[in-house]
Amino acid sequence: MKDVQNQIDLRGVEIQKVGIKGFELPIVIQRKDAEDKVIYATATCGVTLPAEYKGTHMSRFVEVLNEWRERKTLDIKSCVVAMVERLNAKSGCIKFDFKYFIEKKSPVTGIYAPMCYDCSFEAILEDYNGDDEEYQFFLGVKVPVTTLCPCSKEISSYGAHNQRAIVSVKVTYPEDEHVWIEDLVAKVEKTASSELYSLLKREDEKYVTEQAYDNPKFVEDVLRDVVLLLRNDDQIDSFEVECESIESIHNHSAWAYQLEN
Amino acid sequence: MKDVQNQIDLRGVEIQKVGIKGFELPIVIQRKDAEDKVIYATATCGVTLPAEYKGTHMSRFVEVLNEWRERKTLDIKSCVVAMVERLNAKSGCIKFDFKYFIEKKSPVTGIYAPMCYDCSFEAILEDYNGDDEEYQFFLGVKVPVTTLCPCSKEISSYGAHNQRAIVSVKVTYPEDEHVWIEDLVAKVEKTASSELYSLLKREDEKYVTEQAYDNPKFVEDVLRDVVLLLRNDDQIDSFEVECESIESIHNHSAWAYQLEN
Amino acid sequence: MKDVQNQIDLRGVEIQKVGIKGFELPIVIQRKDAEDKVIYATATCGVTLPAEYKGTHMSRFVEVLNEWRERKTLDIKSCVVAMVERLNAKSGCIKFDFKYFIEKKSPVTGIYAPMCYDCSFEAILEDYNGDDEEYQFFLGVKVPVTTLCPCSKEISSYGAHNQRAIVSVKVTYPEDEHVWIEDLVAKVEKTASSELYSLLKREDEKYVTEQAYDNPKFVEDVLRDVVLLLRNDDQIDSFEVECESIESIHNHSAWAYQLEN
Amino acid sequence: MKDVQNQIDLRGVEIQKVGIKGFELPIVIQRKDAEDKVIYATATCGVTLPAEYKGTHMSRFVEVLNEWRERKTLDIKSCVVAMVERLNAKSGCIKFDFKYFIEKKSPVTGIYAPMCYDCSFEAILEDYNGDDEEYQFFLGVKVPVTTLCPCSKEISSYGAHNQRAIVSVKVTYPEDEHVWIEDLVAKVEKTASSELYSLLKREDEKYVTEQAYDNPKFVEDVLRDVVLLLRNDDQIDSFEVECESIESIHNHSAWAYQLEN
Repeated sequence: MKDVQNQIDLRGVEIQKVGIKGFELPIVIQRKDAEDKVIYATATCGVTLPAEYKGTHMSRFVEVLNEWRERKTLDIKSCVVAMVERLNAKSGCIKFDFKYFIEKKSPVTGIYAPMCYDCSFEAILEDYNGDDEEYQFFLGVKVPVTTLCPCSKEISSYGAHNQRAIVSVKVTYPEDEHVWIEDLVAKVEKTASSELYSLLKREDEKYVTEQAYDNPKFVEDVLRDVVLLLRNDDQIDSFEVECESIESIHNHSAWAYQLEN
Repeated sequence: MKDVQNQIDLRGVEIQKVGIKGFELPIVIQRKDAEDKVIYATATCGVTLPAEYKGTHMSRFVEVLNEWRERKTLDIKSCVVAMVERLNAKSGCIKFDFKYFIEKKSPVTGIYAPMCYDCSFEAILEDYNGDDEEYQFFLGVKVPVTTLCPCSKEISSYGAHNQRAIVSVKVTYPEDEHVWIEDLVAKVEKTASSELYSLLKREDEKYVTEQAYDNPKFVEDVLRDVVLLLRNDDQIDSFEVECESIESIHNHSAWAYQLEN
Repeated sequence: MKDVQNQIDLRGVEIQKVGIKGFELPIVIQRKDAEDKVIYATATCGVTLPAEYKGTHMSRFVEVLNEWRERKTLDIKSCVVAMVERLNAKSGCIKFDFKYFIEKKSPVTGIYAPMCYDCSFEAILEDYNGDDEEYQFFLGVKVPVTTLCPCSKEISSYGAHNQRAIVSVKVTYPEDEHVWIEDLVAKVEKTASSELYSLLKREDEKYVTEQAYDNPKFVEDVLRDVVLLLRNDDQIDSFEVECESIESIHNHSAWAYQLEN
Repeated sequence: MKDVQNQIDLRGVEIQKVGIKGFELPIVIQRKDAEDKVIYATATCGVTLPAEYKGTHMSRFVEVLNEWRERKTLDIKSCVVAMVERLNAKSGCIKFDFKYFIEKKSPVTGIYAPMCYDCSFEAILEDYNGDDEEYQFFLGVKVPVTTLCPCSKEISSYGAHNQRAIVSVKVTYPEDEHVWIEDLVAKVEKTASSELYSLLKREDEKYVTEQAYDNPKFVEDVLRDVVLLLRNDDQIDSFEVECESIESIHNHSAWAYQLEN
């Protein structure tokens, strides 16, 4: 059968990224202080395509992912290397978006229940030639928290509006370091007016209500505290932080954003 | 050209609804105490298909919608009648989902700003034969509000968790009645701990914060108050109500639902 | 601490469903001819609330789900019974939405790769009094397939437009029967112009292309074939079918719907 | 009342962007060869916040947008300038996401019907001091088209899989140029196997079916043709292109991406 993809292309356009998007698969990942776990990820993968080739080979992306999911635990770097090799490309990227569960203890009654966080692993490999390469890994977490408005508290005779907010953090760190999702989530949760929990009995609800009231925070405050903790973290090379607060008094969000390389 | 759709089908299955989904178009609708307005709707339309025909004629749905959008103001009943006639069907339905803006005054400073509500018009025509038919119209509104937790207020020394909640209401009423979106939204907003606003200066923020604290409501409370106001409304034949509260202390919602015919 | 939820309510409104929505958790489910598997579900649960009580106890829903997820395999009926008992309600419902993976073999080269399907389990328990009850279970699957347009094929000198379509099926069956997701999906896939696959080499792509062209189907055809296979299935009591075809020549979908009790 | 936002902050973190997200409002925009039109936009706006201030003033973003929507036609640059001035910031950004309708003629029968495109306007103002500034404007369009697979056509005895694909294009151009949405969309549509239409009679359907079959295109082909037309466009300074094809034979997408400054 003819290999249409291998035909010569005369337009002279090298493509930066071509591959597949929205491919769902189970993969095995490591957890902190717990057994490895199967998670269900949505994958986006791409490689460079030299100007002279008409097309990439889409089925090979699925082949590589299909081989890698059977491995004990995912090594995303060797996966992106395999992809780039299989497709004779010089650069490539893989992103996995997935839900990750952490057992979380309610603050007073101490009951454990699972909390779910949207997370991502992203690997970018550039100028790969078998010996040498540029490689970057990004860990992303979205942490839901409570924000209680300092202005509302200050100007009101009683009460203060509060709401759920989402703190999205993406960090890069050197290959010889390792940042656990569990640790990054726990640090971010500390920066808010209060943390969220799946299971709260009455004693717990009293605690988180008062905790939030004692600890008012704008999105600016949460963002700054996350920025400081990441700046002061020796493991972290660069980071991106976004805080979006689903305002309880408006039908829009309060929002803050920072990118530091 | 052959009309494949008109071919005879031997499977003996009458289809209840067949048509198009997700068709976007501008339509003109009436507003209370204001000029008619163009809104942008996403339409889903279907008709019955007798067992003996292989297919419906999909382009005719777009033709009818295309003619109706040019009309001064939408008459959804005559639109669904036209659709059923054009397709030689006995029954049909149209649903328009759209965003609707209401100018809303902040509670203390009195400044106007637009608030956006997700709304829907739905028309169901059955057993139509030119003279007689069953016809029902449904008006749907999604009203964002504040809920402040009565339990959290009661058990805590200070503060109370609160959050944005969405009250979804769908009502039917006789053909000779008319319910304005503006009126239905305003009534529903009154049942919550506080209403939402697009623009709040500091005096307004103090007002809504204290208003919510003075007026704690579970999703159960909001639901019951909406149920009572609709039961007591002589215009309304039947209704469906849902209240979903985007809890500020959890990563899931509190939820209540009622359907009364 | 005061139990605000247990306070007397004087409005006289019995609530049909009150509970939680969007709670994410891992549960263990059975698979056909394979080991039990952890899946990640989004749960919505509700119970009735008598007119005389101000509120339900939201944390108990999480408690019951939290206990049930630890069980070997999910028994959804005993879970909804436990929920209704824990909350002293007469009726209740649970719905789990989840992604389910099936290993699927490419049609010619025979390589296995995972395909992901959006599925749901739903249980409704009514008039429960410890001895007697009304109970219904609904299994839902969303099956992506190819539809190739019979009209386009007939009227064109060559080619035919085709596209991805989603067939959504929900079935109920008696308590003493069991329908496997794997079997229901496989039957629905057979009704389309072609099935979808995660991994297709060139020989496979030739096969599915010709298969779809040999087998043109409107959404009406797919719907009717699914209706017939479910009508003729002795296990199935009642069903709901929807077929939405993401038309490749339009920016809207072709759509058909059937509900048979 | 105390101005909490104006309090001194000691953390020493200048914030890059702080503002509001998801604010919905009507705005008036210019159209090519047609009257100005009200569109409904979702706005995200942010400004820098100096290290020494605790918070920005969220209500001022809504105030500025509220004033600007009343203007005859939106001048997004003067809007972002007003925002930066009102908030005493040195830099700011505004993004409007909106649906835009273009009347489109079917290819053979010549009937007009509306087609809807997801579009965006984005303005970034940096180092503003009243006299001087860095200013960039981005126009974004998402264009749905048909892609017909060249490989599938080549290797199959008859037929070829095809599907809807979305071509997302974002371009920047100098302040003294103007690119119409209508022109950019029309150029992008020409690069695909076929364009999409809202209304197609049988003669039109034959035309688009054969047109797509005569004109097979991978996502790589569409991307390259869009890249070339933008490289060769004297108005355009820089651009970003993404092509995602909702494969009719897979449950994932084929995908290509290019960014050129």
